[in-house]
Amino acid sequence: MTRLIRANGFRWDVPLKAYKTDGTGFRGISRQTLIGEADSEQMANNITRYFEIQPGGHSSLERHAHTHSVVILRGSGTVLLDRDVHPVNTHDCVFIGPECLHQFHAASDQPLGFLCIVDRERDRPRPPSADELAALRAIPGLREWVRV
Amino acid sequence: MTRLIRANGFRWDVPLKAYKTDGTGFRGISRQTLIGEADSEQMANNITRYFEIQPGGHSSLERHAHTHSVVILRGSGTVLLDRDVHPVNTHDCVFIGPECLHQFHAASDQPLGFLCIVDRERDRPRPPSADELAALRAIPGLREWVRV
Repeated sequence: MTRLIRANGFRWDVPLKAYKTDGTGFRGISRQTLIGEADSEQMANNITRYFEIQPGGHSSLERHAHTHSVVILRGSGTVLLDRDVHPVNTHDCVFIGPECLHQFHAASDQPLGFLCIVDRERDRPRPPSADELAALRAIPGLREWVRV
Repeated sequence: MTRLIRANGFRWDVPLKAYKTDGTGFRGISRQTLIGEADSEQMANNITRYFEIQPGGHSSLERHAHTHSVVILRGSGTVLLDRDVHPVNTHDCVFIGPECLHQFHAASDQPLGFLCIVDRERDRPRPPSADELAALRAIPGLREWVRV
């Protein structure tokens, strides 16, 4: 039931996984589920994952009905939230509300590592439509930033 | 809905609160609810709090039916889990299962800061009974460690 998960640098003694097993539009990103996926942890309705994006890499551009609670653990980068890009630094937090289109980019010179806490029951992420993507890219400064 | 919460050292731009508004048995500990308590965040079923215990301080000795997912963000210390005391260091994680008796102590020379993620719906913590406390203190090494 109770379990200690030891850290060694920014790796923990749990499996290091691919970011996603399907889908595209991401680069240089790994996942470790720290707490909540073990058989004995199913009574918790939340899951704590650690994602790490390598320098210059990015997560998928996506939205979903469930929320993300993000705590940056390492490095810095930028995050798209709906139509705005914001800088993020170590220990900043982001609450990503329902249906908010989002994407994380690591800085070019350092990895961006963050906790992402989700409810156990959640819907699948969805990419923006072609029209939405075109509208996003029409925003000054976003044409080069957005990656799919 | 979506919200950025900026960090400045180990303080965030949310209210700094007392650890508990009632109860006893704790010393030198503060709370910041980082994500999940705002009106617009009620659709998330999890809440992310940051607790910081000053050097030599401790949390309450308690148990409850709900689980805690803990990620150490700062410093080091020790944690009692049922009948054993374990060292904890920065970035170690602890899943505290249902009804596990637990208490965190900061090291004597540095604060211990940690995220504690809980489900929104949860029961109230309870202290051990007098008999349990006596049994705990009969364990070699725990007489001096346990604080109530």
